[in-house]
Parts: sequence; structure tokens; C-alpha cells
Amino acid sequence: MNTPDTPLAGLRIVECATFVAGPSGGMALAQLGAEVIRVDLPQGGGDHGRWPVAPSGASLYWNNLNKGKRSVALDFRTPEGRELLTALATAEGPANGIYLDNVAGRTRLRYDELTERRRDVIHVHVQGKPDGKPAVDYTANAEVGVPDMTGPQDHAAPVNHVLPAWDFLTGMTAATGVLAALHRRAATGEGSGIAVALSDVALAAVGNLGWLAEARFAGRGRPRHGNHTFGSFGVDFPTADGRRVMVLALTPGQWDALCAATGTTEVFKALEPVFDADLSTESDRYRLRDTIEAILRPWFEGRGLAEIGERLDHARVLWGPYRDTHEAATLALADPGSIVTEIDQPGVGAMAASAGPLRWSGSTQPPRPAPLLGADTDEVLSRDLGLSAAELGRLHDAGLVSGPAPSEH
Amino acid sequence: MNTPDTPLAGLRIVECATFVAGPSGGMALAQLGAEVIRVDLPQGGGDHGRWPVAPSGASLYWNNLNKGKRSVALDFRTPEGRELLTALATAEGPANGIYLDNVAGRTRLRYDELTERRRDVIHVHVQGKPDGKPAVDYTANAEVGVPDMTGPQDHAAPVNHVLPAWDFLTGMTAATGVLAALHRRAATGEGSGIAVALSDVALAAVGNLGWLAEARFAGRGRPRHGNHTFGSFGVDFPTADGRRVMVLALTPGQWDALCAATGTTEVFKALEPVFDADLSTESDRYRLRDTIEAILRPWFEGRGLAEIGERLDHARVLWGPYRDTHEAATLALADPGSIVTEIDQPGVGAMAASAGPLRWSGSTQPPRPAPLLGADTDEVLSRDLGLSAAELGRLHDAGLVSGPAPSEH
Repeated sequence: MNTPDTPLAGLRIVECATFVAGPSGGMALAQLGAEVIRVDLPQGGGDHGRWPVAPSGASLYWNNLNKGKRSVALDFRTPEGRELLTALATAEGPANGIYLDNVAGRTRLRYDELTERRRDVIHVHVQGKPDGKPAVDYTANAEVGVPDMTGPQDHAAPVNHVLPAWDFLTGMTAATGVLAALHRRAATGEGSGIAVALSDVALAAVGNLGWLAEARFAGRGRPRHGNHTFGSFGVDFPTADGRRVMVLALTPGQWDALCAATGTTEVFKALEPVFDADLSTESDRYRLRDTIEAILRPWFEGRGLAEIGERLDHARVLWGPYRDTHEAATLALADPGSIVTEIDQPGVGAMAASAGPLRWSGSTQPPRPAPLLGADTDEVLSRDLGLSAAELGRLHDAGLVSGPAPSEH
Repeated sequence: MNTPDTPLAGLRIVECATFVAGPSGGMALAQLGAEVIRVDLPQGGGDHGRWPVAPSGASLYWNNLNKGKRSVALDFRTPEGRELLTALATAEGPANGIYLDNVAGRTRLRYDELTERRRDVIHVHVQGKPDGKPAVDYTANAEVGVPDMTGPQDHAAPVNHVLPAWDFLTGMTAATGVLAALHRRAATGEGSGIAVALSDVALAAVGNLGWLAEARFAGRGRPRHGNHTFGSFGVDFPTADGRRVMVLALTPGQWDALCAATGTTEVFKALEPVFDADLSTESDRYRLRDTIEAILRPWFEGRGLAEIGERLDHARVLWGPYRDTHEAATLALADPGSIVTEIDQPGVGAMAASAGPLRWSGSTQPPRPAPLLGADTDEVLSRDLGLSAAELGRLHDAGLVSGPAPSEH
């Protein structure tokens, strides 16, 4: 049923993708109520065992990137398996005919093939580079210049991000593409063949920040500036109890609040004429960032996190504590309003898992477990392609499809 | 007209948002053909002059985050201006009634108010935290544990990312929310009130990678591991000519290719029994990452980037060179297939700008310039709200709306 928090209920999406980008895009659609059928090879994709893993050995990565999907396992590298995948991707009915993949190489289903089977099919193809050459988050990031700007100011080498930011952004861009194509299909009856490349997503984003234009005007890339926020005032401070906080003053009001909280209003007022600066402007706060940091640091070094937090909150300073993922997970699990809850994940047991971040009328669908590999093979092939029990038995015997072992059922 | 690369043509979205998240989400919809009307205060929002800036002083940040939008400048903090914004957000017709904002505080338009004016209105509200408390990319990042895992292994302090990854992912999530709500409105006639918080987007993503579950099982956060790719083999190497490359072996095939390209196949075969390792598995490559790096490094240090690139490409190794943004921009501008082109941006001049990354049937809409502040104030208020020239004159005289100075027209 289409409820306020399942706006895509009734849609059926066939996903044949591995790792982060494609699967996270498919999961975003599943978290909005669509039925998303992830198709894997019978032994699982290259991501099926990826780290981190649970004590049971099951992948926490796979199980968290495929929550709430259905799983069909079939060998789409064989002609018969490829035909089954094609039939699933182009099944009849207004809910069907939506295919999201990141398959590379000769066996992948191409849009022009799919349109022969269903004229208005929607195909979103996630790839590394727009010409089909391989790229992953870490190479796309290096090539677009972000690691070159990241890290401690005195560090000689580029610093990789740990978060696969481009993968996630590509996945959500692919989800947007699916929905835009659906809008177009509803409006015009036309299908869509769409490609989205990690390297394009990265170029688009650094372009959108003005970084490409900046570099062209400057004739060089921007130098590394440590933990400082570019173009404004924001930096981290250590506390007396071994913690660390990120503190920002992006607006004049936030700057006044920071000065008031730390008792430095008069200090900075006196400093402005010395530096010919107007610290109510972001550009002058950025120019004098090292001085501001040096003046404020003792205030933070002399207090514990709890006192700092109280004082900054009271003065409405924009700040946040640094945490590790353990503290972040533990706090989120203890917060009844959080999107993170513990679910019972087959193959793992109790597992901290997050819901989607879109809150519809204040609520969000709680996270649902990921399927066991092939859990829905028989049901989906029978329901959507009309395969009989005898036909399914033959496919299993031939190793062309797989499902969970009987004990897992 | 709804063409293959303007699937949202005919839709009209009112955006009242500043900085990256909201505006990048609105721009994604504009790049898919929707008319996106950005509403600002008459003097511009807090982001209007944000760095980086062009030699002319105009913001390269603002002009790249608002490409292809229309601009209306009105003082929505006054009762009369707020009423104009409400009327725009709830205008009649199937194309209208879509409102995207990140306004905080008492003056912001609330979903329940908007529904009184248009029952099926769609409102996507971008915020810092789900309870309305402030957060920005840099505080959300700190709180979710990413800087704690980022940076050189021997570095004692957390390392901030430079890319506002959460802002971009929140923006694209908001765009997905708009389109999912449109799908629901078409299917059921119902509107939607949706909130998306930066802190939820960050929690959802680290949860989706399995990092929260991992930390709960481990009882602690994951230690920093430098530029190494977690759970597999991937790291950077310096070259003989002062460059640096990112090299990965995520799959058994990529590992074989890397060994073949560097002539180390027999070395690693001989090492496997010594370490009781099977280097065709990601987990053993990760366990032995420092050893692998040390064995491969001289091969890279002894060659220049051009030779390394040829050899790695020939062997089908997954790799990419590190660049700064200047090299990235210059290469993209020289590539006729790139989404980056130079456009004539009012207030800036020739400016490198990126199109959206979704390629529809192989093509993407070229980037369009950003509007001058208030460029469309009179036309939009007259077209959508039926204001007369006399009424517009009064609003201008009262300082409630603004448009570009006549010389800018």
C-alpha cells in the first residue's frame, strides 16, 4: 500500500549491481517502498564477503547495503541466465521495466537490447568512466584533486578519504535518474537509457563548488589547509579531557556567539584595527584563521567536553564533538528518535542498522533485514516469469540459479 | 519540451535554500529540465559571496551551485514577503506546489501551513539535525566518526574531509525525495511533508557501509589506516617524476594484473606459504598490505607516470593518477566528451562549469549560467502571482523585493 512513507509502493526495480554505488541507489528506492530485486551470480557477487564482517563471517557491508531488497541468484553470464535477467528487466506492466546495473563487459545488458523487448524500458547504468573504462571511488577521488587538498598542512602526500563519498553520491544520483525517467515515462510514454559515471559525479561536484573555476583563475590547485574550513572560520580544538571538538563561525551571528562564549569579544575587537580586518566577514576570519585559532585554543584546552558543550550550546555556537564510530553507534542506538536500530539479520544476528534518512511526516520506515543470497529466486522467477516448479528444478540442477540451503529457509 | 535529457520539463520548483545541500538538490532537478526558482533575501543569502571568488569578486561557489535556476529576491522575513513566498510555493496547477527549503527559525514556512493553501503540496525541508538543531557538514562528519578514521596512520588528530560530502549527498537525497513525492502525488493525489537532516544522511551512510555494526561487534572504532583501502588492497605510490598514483586490486583478476604488470607474480607466489596467506582473497591482501606495498614500491619509484600508466593500462590494472584541481579542470576542458565546459557567467566572465552527471541517451544538457540575484523577480511574480507593474513598483520601492540594477539587465 502506498502510505506517506512508502511513496514508491507498487514499483518493481531489477538491480544487477555490486559494491556501493549501484546497490546504495537501489536500496534508497527500496527504503521508499519499491520492491527492489537484486540479481547476483549463484555464488554471489564480488562484494558478497566484503569487509567489515560479523563474528559469523557474514559481510556487514553487504548486509547493510542491501537491506529490504529481494534476492535472486542466477548465472547471467550464461545465455540462458542472461535471457532470464533480460526477461525480468523488461517484464510487462506499469510497475515493471526498470533496470539498474553496474555490470561491465560483454555480457552486460545494453539499453538497445532491452528496448527491443520493452519499448519504454528504463535503464540506469552505473559505470566508472563515461567511456566505460574502469574507475572506483578511490581513483575518481585522486583524479579530481580532492586528496591533494586534504590532510594536515605539513603533510607532503595526498590524503585519501575513507568514506566512499563518490559511490554514495553516484548511487543517489542513479536513484534520482530512475525517478526522473519514471516521471518522463508517465508524461510521455517514453523510456530512457541513462548512464552515470563515478568520474562524472566527482567532476560535477568539484565543479559545483567552484573549485575547477577557482583553479583555472589561479593557475594552480588550492593548497592544503589542514582541518580549517575554507573561506570562513572553522577548525578543531583539543579539550582538557582528551576529546576534540569542531567549531565553526560561518555567519556574523555565529562569530559573535563564539566570541561571547569564550570571553574574547574585546580581544578580537581590539585586534581588528591591528590587522586591518573586519572579523564579521568570512574572508577576514579565513585570512586570520591561525590567529583566531591560537587565541581560542587555551579556552578549549582548559575545559572538559561536558563544560565546553554546555557553554557553547548556551551561547548558540555552531560546534560538534568528534566521535569514533563506536560512540556514534552507541549514542544512536540509545536515542529512540534515531534512524539506527538493532535488527535481526539472518546470517549475522543482532545488527545495528540504519533506516533511510528521508522522514515522511516525521516518520521513516524502520530498517528491514537484507535477504539471504537467492532467498527469492524461486518465488520471483515463478511470479514474474511464470516458471513452473519443474523448470525451476532443472535450473537449480544445472547450477544456473541458486537459493538458500533448505536449513536457511 | 520534454526531451530525453529534460525529463522533468514542465515542473516548477520553488527553492528557498542556501549553501550546498539544498541548492545542489535544486540544481540537480534544474539540470533534469525542471524550472527551479531560487528565492533569496533582497541582499542575497548568507552564501551569496562565499569563497572561492572570481577576480571580479563574484562568488564562484554561488554561481556554480545555482546554474540554470531562476532567481527571485524578496524579503520573506517580513509578513508581506512571507505571504508572497507562500503563494509561490503553493501556486495552482500540476506543475506547481513543490517547495524545497533549508530555512531555520520562526519565519520558515511549515508543511501544515502550506497544506492549508494547497492540500497536495510537496515540501522537502533540509535541516541539520532531525530535531531542528543546527549542524553543518563539518560537525555531522565529526560526530559520525569519519575524521577519526581518516588520515596518515601516525597522525594523532582526526582529519576533516575537504569535500562537503554530506551536503552533496543530502542534496541528492532531497532531490530523490521530491521525485518520490511527485510519484506519490500522481498515484494517490496526496501531498508530502518530508524532512531530511544532514546528521541522518551521515548516520545512514556509515550504517550502510556496516561501520556502525562493525564498531558494536568490535567494541571500538576502527583505527586509522592511512591511504590503504580497508578490507582489500589499495594504496598510493610515488613515481620517479614526483607524481603519485592510486593502485587497487579489489578482485582476483585485478590482483593478477597488478602482479603481472610489476613482474612480481613469482615473488608473491613464493610469499604465500611463508605468511600462510591466499593473496587471491581480499582479506589476506588487506592483512599483508604493508608487505605488498613495500614489495611494489620500488617498481613505481623507478618509473615516470607516463610509463607506469602505459604498463598498468596494458595489463588492465585498476589505477588512477593523483591530480590537483587545476590539472583536473584543464584536462576536462580539453576533452570534448567531458561534462565540464567554459560558459559565459554574468558577473564572472568565462567560467569552467560542470553539467549534471546523468547522461541521457549519451547526452547531457550543457551547463547554463546562474542568474544574477533577483534577475527573475518581476517576471515570476507577475507570471505566477499575477502582480501588476504598479504592485511590483510598490514592492521595489518598499525594499521588499529586488532585481538586478538596470545596467545588469
